[in-house]
Amino acid sequence: MTETKAGLIGFGNIGAGVVRLLQENAALIKGKAGTGIVLKKIADLDTTTDRGVMLPPGTLTDDVNEIFDDPEISVVIELIGGYEPAKSFVLKAIERGKHIVTANKALLALHGEEIYAAAARRNVEVQFEAAVGGGIPVLTAIKGNLAANNFGSVFGIMNGTCNYILTRMTQEGADFADMLAAAKQLGYAEPDPTFDIEGVDTAHKLAILASLCFGTRIDFNAIHTEGISGITAHDVKFANDFGYHIKLLAIGKLSSGKIEARVHPTMIPLHNPLAEVNGVFNAIRLTADFAGPVMFYGRGAGQNPTASAIVGDLIGLARSMKAGAGRRMAPLGFLDSMIRDIPLKPMSEIVSKYMLRFSALDKPGVLAAISGSLGRHEISIESMVQTSKQSDSSIPVAIVIKTHEALEGAVQAALSEIDRLDIICMPTVFIRIEDNLE
Amino acid sequence: MTETKAGLIGFGNIGAGVVRLLQENAALIKGKAGTGIVLKKIADLDTTTDRGVMLPPGTLTDDVNEIFDDPEISVVIELIGGYEPAKSFVLKAIERGKHIVTANKALLALHGEEIYAAAARRNVEVQFEAAVGGGIPVLTAIKGNLAANNFGSVFGIMNGTCNYILTRMTQEGADFADMLAAAKQLGYAEPDPTFDIEGVDTAHKLAILASLCFGTRIDFNAIHTEGISGITAHDVKFANDFGYHIKLLAIGKLSSGKIEARVHPTMIPLHNPLAEVNGVFNAIRLTADFAGPVMFYGRGAGQNPTASAIVGDLIGLARSMKAGAGRRMAPLGFLDSMIRDIPLKPMSEIVSKYMLRFSALDKPGVLAAISGSLGRHEISIESMVQTSKQSDSSIPVAIVIKTHEALEGAVQAALSEIDRLDIICMPTVFIRIEDNLE
Repeated sequence: MTETKAGLIGFGNIGAGVVRLLQENAALIKGKAGTGIVLKKIADLDTTTDRGVMLPPGTLTDDVNEIFDDPEISVVIELIGGYEPAKSFVLKAIERGKHIVTANKALLALHGEEIYAAAARRNVEVQFEAAVGGGIPVLTAIKGNLAANNFGSVFGIMNGTCNYILTRMTQEGADFADMLAAAKQLGYAEPDPTFDIEGVDTAHKLAILASLCFGTRIDFNAIHTEGISGITAHDVKFANDFGYHIKLLAIGKLSSGKIEARVHPTMIPLHNPLAEVNGVFNAIRLTADFAGPVMFYGRGAGQNPTASAIVGDLIGLARSMKAGAGRRMAPLGFLDSMIRDIPLKPMSEIVSKYMLRFSALDKPGVLAAISGSLGRHEISIESMVQTSKQSDSSIPVAIVIKTHEALEGAVQAALSEIDRLDIICMPTVFIRIEDNLE
Repeated sequence: MTETKAGLIGFGNIGAGVVRLLQENAALIKGKAGTGIVLKKIADLDTTTDRGVMLPPGTLTDDVNEIFDDPEISVVIELIGGYEPAKSFVLKAIERGKHIVTANKALLALHGEEIYAAAARRNVEVQFEAAVGGGIPVLTAIKGNLAANNFGSVFGIMNGTCNYILTRMTQEGADFADMLAAAKQLGYAEPDPTFDIEGVDTAHKLAILASLCFGTRIDFNAIHTEGISGITAHDVKFANDFGYHIKLLAIGKLSSGKIEARVHPTMIPLHNPLAEVNGVFNAIRLTADFAGPVMFYGRGAGQNPTASAIVGDLIGLARSMKAGAGRRMAPLGFLDSMIRDIPLKPMSEIVSKYMLRFSALDKPGVLAAISGSLGRHEISIESMVQTSKQSDSSIPVAIVIKTHEALEGAVQAALSEIDRLDIICMPTVFIRIEDNLE
């Protein structure tokens, strides 16, 4: 075999990046893969928009069947995004015995199981390094050299929009709304940024990471997902005073036969490498029973990093085909028969430390009322600060408490009790803390 | 094939870790590799010392030929360390058509070329993830999913002994000698720590990393290697005042057709994730033309992380063999025919920023003399501090200068001129600075 021939479905920004990388680094890629890798066909309904790359005549088509029907094409790259027609196209390519490379995290998070089962039947591979962490080769690592490990946890800062906003809020003491506007202006946030800032994009990635780490199916809709739109400059400042940065963290943990899978703003200790992941950068941190903690850091999005991940997957497949291998690895790195159903832990059962920010009237007995309620729910206080007294006692003060580890159900119960007190002026803000980062 | 059978040569601490990992995570490993992986034979001259693991009778032998002569054994794990007999054993195993997994960085740094050529002739693989960065799967990443990239640089903090000492010097303002003693007491430094603290271990790893990143042969003996034994508490403090941490950094860079390969104490900006790599942790940072900067962080040594890397390599080989592949990848990730000779840049030609610490008498004209000499050599000053004046002008003061980018040859020439001045009391200390870390 002198060339590996691939077909690309969906010719947008990322697709153009793949074309450019395959062209610019063609000799290098051939030297790494052992065969040249060419895009024989690119299918898109739009065949006229200039994508800034040159293509040999006859490459671009608006008929996706030219890819499915071409027996020379051994790998199909799906870059349409979304659920349909992406899912139908992927399944059809698998039926035709073609390996799949995709960057479609939403598709895999919701329909991975069906796709992986189809791939097993046809003995083809499904690779998707670009779906999580852009140019960071974390999925390859989990499935590959770290494969001998049981993973205890996976944490990720995986949304550049959120991390950019939180970083500037931290560095400048700015408000969320202003920094979201700045992110939009710079192209770091979509015109409708809901998926990013409300944590949905991060939850898609967590579903994929957790399924790889724990060898399980994850019900995407059961992932507890909070975004960053409720984080204020005050929260950022108080977190700093306690020695933390706030990050939108995806958290997957496996303990006592249950999985925690949650996405929410999280306080991370200053000087931990994860706390220093700034701007649009991403990081993923694993704890593995033999390898220990391992962290990966890099560009989580963008045309070039995403193209790097996609072409990396292509090279892997080309190497296997050239060496005479059929399907070398199942999509999750486990034999399909090993994939287990592991129950998700309800949020009320998780254990965490918390920063609680109360807006309370500055009256005698306030602290006794709050701490009494926390105590009755077996929540103990690690430290506390109160903003300076107001001359007018009808103006609320902030009482900020850092708790020891507590059951989330107990915290919720205590807060619902406390928030009904007359002296409490606004719903209490609470942010979870991850302290145990080696 | 129901089982992949391996032979292990060298049954010490790491070998026992491999045995334990293969036993403890046997079901997981089988589920990942698609076949069970068993150590059929373990060869060591010492067959009596208790290594804390149970072995089936007949596994341990003092005759290494039992491994070479066993046709069922398809992979040989070399964990003897050092040059001989490790090299002879590896070459003999290759001759018998067995794949190699090794953690032997010294062997590969000096004799990699000969070993890789033999492996190519016999169409077997040589895998060595454990040779660099312990449990951090950085080599797999470079050869694997990042394979489509041209690398511009590779930086590494890759010696836990040095990083532990430097971290404590930074955090406590302590002296090198005291912290080395502490590291010895804690088992973080060998009784004879020369290889670690003088940078030789780091240079071995750099030779391997640079050959993978740049697709070249590296003459290990040509790598400029400085250790940390000359770093004082003063240096650490001045570096901090300028906004830096001092790390023992391995630096590989490719530019204008030449390679820089050097190991020396280096100042890294505070708040860069690389500067927050503390204690015995390791980190490796790559810049890739498409993926951008990528950093990997984790435990760089120890029984468990090293076993993770070795068994990860075994799983990769088992997957390929089960899928019917012969040799899937050349040792450096490049076709052997692609490996180029790239000249090493002499140190006099490198360009860097520098912190220069002069010990000078506190007399009029001192600064003019120093800055005049620097200026004549086209070295411009970015900032300067001077310790407080002494009442006794025969006691030297420290003048610390941070330069803009300058040619190392010019800096050396200027310092040799300045150090001959009567007002200079001790040889000037200079530490290179890496500022351009995104």
